[in-house]
Amino acid sequence: MKLLEERIRKDGIVRPGNVLKVDSFINHQMDIALFEEMAKEWKRLFAGKPINKILTIEASGIGIAAIAAREFGVPVIFAKKSKSINLDNDNYCTRIQSYTHGKVYDVIMSKKFLNSEDHVLIIDDFLANGCALLGLMDLVEHAGATVEGIGIAIEKGFQRGGDIIREKGIQLESLAIVDAMNEDGTIVFREQ
Amino acid sequence: MKLLEERIRKDGIVRPGNVLKVDSFINHQMDIALFEEMAKEWKRLFAGKPINKILTIEASGIGIAAIAAREFGVPVIFAKKSKSINLDNDNYCTRIQSYTHGKVYDVIMSKKFLNSEDHVLIIDDFLANGCALLGLMDLVEHAGATVEGIGIAIEKGFQRGGDIIREKGIQLESLAIVDAMNEDGTIVFREQ
Repeated sequence: MKLLEERIRKDGIVRPGNVLKVDSFINHQMDIALFEEMAKEWKRLFAGKPINKILTIEASGIGIAAIAAREFGVPVIFAKKSKSINLDNDNYCTRIQSYTHGKVYDVIMSKKFLNSEDHVLIIDDFLANGCALLGLMDLVEHAGATVEGIGIAIEKGFQRGGDIIREKGIQLESLAIVDAMNEDGTIVFREQ
Repeated sequence: MKLLEERIRKDGIVRPGNVLKVDSFINHQMDIALFEEMAKEWKRLFAGKPINKILTIEASGIGIAAIAAREFGVPVIFAKKSKSINLDNDNYCTRIQSYTHGKVYDVIMSKKFLNSEDHVLIIDDFLANGCALLGLMDLVEHAGATVEGIGIAIEKGFQRGGDIIREKGIQLESLAIVDAMNEDGTIVFREQ
């Protein structure tokens, strides 16, 4: 998506260690007008799929998912990070490894909000190694629901997550795929 | 706001200890169509105010704030909860006491996104003792920006937060004010 790529070139900041900061428009300050254009693009890319729910994970996915859900006319569920696995019978639980923060955290979602009738679009801001998405897919599987697709704002194409997801045969639509970030701050996007 | 009050009566669950669960439409699963109606109501209530930014706090405020921001045509900043005060020079920091979770946490916001030119509408899902809002107001004050108003989905009118905020002369618009929750599950709303 050219609009997003241009915005990343303009306002994204490349830091050592393949860090791409987009906190001025994606994950701290949120440019809602940009999110609306992203939502319209996902609507086009997932046209014809019987999506009735959007799933994301707190915190930085929630804003994008909310605007996407408005475009699709469906509710959003956000999975919650939890200090400790909640061993009650009311929640689906999974465990996600965060390489960014160097720790493992548990993620929960109430069983009330997802069942085998549901057709889910997963939305998140970033895809790198794929751990968060695999966790969300695991929650959907626990519920017996169907993952209709995954919409990502920015994929780091040089990490493994995208390949892992695509090899599963899931429709993954990353609106910008960064194949390389150079020390001079330039960014190479994959042709789509 | 009648629509929200009716929804709380229909889908809200009263639990012992004055707990009101609204996780089926507000803070776990999010009803975006309802959020749009709430956003329109805030737009009406804050008409004429020179609001150019919306501020909220992760995680459950983000979805409501994003939809409200779309209605106002402005960006959102969400303040981030932090394990430890970040003593760098890039962030405004404040400390918030959470009675729900029985702990104190630090909240940070990048200095890049708020300055003395900004006119801020603060949005959150719940107002009870007011600690979270006072923390957000503290961040706005650090930035030298102006709080133009506060929009809340559900205020617990029997707790102190609403009075504390209103005594400061700030326009506080809570779309539903719960004055009492009874053991039989009935809810008394304040006439507005």
